[in-house]
Amino acid sequence: MPPQADPEPALIPAITAFEASPDRGRGHARDMRVRWALEEVGQPYDVRLVSFAEMKQPAHLALHPFGQIPTYEEGDLALFETGAIVLHIAQQHRGLLPEEATSRARAIAWMFAALNTVEPPIVEREAAMLMERDKPWFEARAPLLEERARRRLADLSARLDDADWLDGSFTAADLLMVTVLRRPAAADLLDSYPNLEAYIARGEARPAYRRAFADQLAVFTAQSPRPD
Amino acid sequence: MPPQADPEPALIPAITAFEASPDRGRGHARDMRVRWALEEVGQPYDVRLVSFAEMKQPAHLALHPFGQIPTYEEGDLALFETGAIVLHIAQQHRGLLPEEATSRARAIAWMFAALNTVEPPIVEREAAMLMERDKPWFEARAPLLEERARRRLADLSARLDDADWLDGSFTAADLLMVTVLRRPAAADLLDSYPNLEAYIARGEARPAYRRAFADQLAVFTAQSPRPD
Repeated sequence: MPPQADPEPALIPAITAFEASPDRGRGHARDMRVRWALEEVGQPYDVRLVSFAEMKQPAHLALHPFGQIPTYEEGDLALFETGAIVLHIAQQHRGLLPEEATSRARAIAWMFAALNTVEPPIVEREAAMLMERDKPWFEARAPLLEERARRRLADLSARLDDADWLDGSFTAADLLMVTVLRRPAAADLLDSYPNLEAYIARGEARPAYRRAFADQLAVFTAQSPRPD
Repeated sequence: MPPQADPEPALIPAITAFEASPDRGRGHARDMRVRWALEEVGQPYDVRLVSFAEMKQPAHLALHPFGQIPTYEEGDLALFETGAIVLHIAQQHRGLLPEEATSRARAIAWMFAALNTVEPPIVEREAAMLMERDKPWFEARAPLLEERARRRLADLSARLDDADWLDGSFTAADLLMVTVLRRPAAADLLDSYPNLEAYIARGEARPAYRRAFADQLAVFTAQSPRPD
């Protein structure tokens, strides 16, 4: 029995996800990260779908102060922020973080690096592509945004070198980093970094990734009219 | 004796900081976060100053794959990313995270929120102010950047309401959030959110903050010619 056994070991966590995913099931919404983590550790979960309107209502804002998805509820615990949710899952189960303290701290450093150093210039480029494409400055700013994203990708590629994962075995940091690199505003630059392309492919080949991807895709296809 | 006693309890961690801080000692460089955390828990530390050129050399890149400061070295452990370093310090010492598991997980969620949800639009606005001010599109884009930052500040202000800290007592999440809100691209919007201004003032009034601030300022003043 673990030293701090859960008082209700059968507790099934519940997450929220977009009722109508803007990416049409391509797995870029952030619930993908939480689904993948739960699949890696073999933890069943429930999903509650929310509309964009619901996300800005008090009931959802009580769970997520910034009105986003996903959220994570497990008994009395309500969490937001995918980094924190994935870290919580990794701390509750074996398999997503090394047991040894130094390696574990380093894996957590790479989790923060994925979200706070690599993701921001990618999201910034993506936001411009989505929201400023019709602006007169879009073309002139595009090289600047590409350069900001490439600076991070080049450093990451140099550090990864020919390793399979960021720091030893697969961890929650690889899970987060792969989802960051899959974003369209990173993916279209990856021809220049074949080792990052191979890294993403290794992540996507994991059975837990494939189950999570299929489940989030099913939300989209279930709501689309069948072609017939 | 704690259950996992450090084999070398007298180990003094070493951090890196800018040799010549671009903010002239106003405490916006990210070593401020680590200094503040170490002061909160009463852990002495050493500082190694690095130049911009050194930060891009192999010796520093081995510690920080993205060529930034701060880094954190403690015996065999080398960390980067302020979120991870502050979390490590909070896990090694009492005082920066609640002991109770649910409150602790929530405080960690707020740590990620500070760095992954609130900071990015503030850094984006700051980068434009620093690097695109002379561009023809700067004025036209300014309201868009302000709106992105304000959306986060408004949500944060609504959630904080009249509380002293984000979620109960002061935690590592408040430490990170205060440093994010102190950034110039957030600070100049805070007239609209008096409770956030008061929140920052509470953070800055902490003795540990004041010691950390004085120490990073001393690096700058020691290198400036004295007016006489």
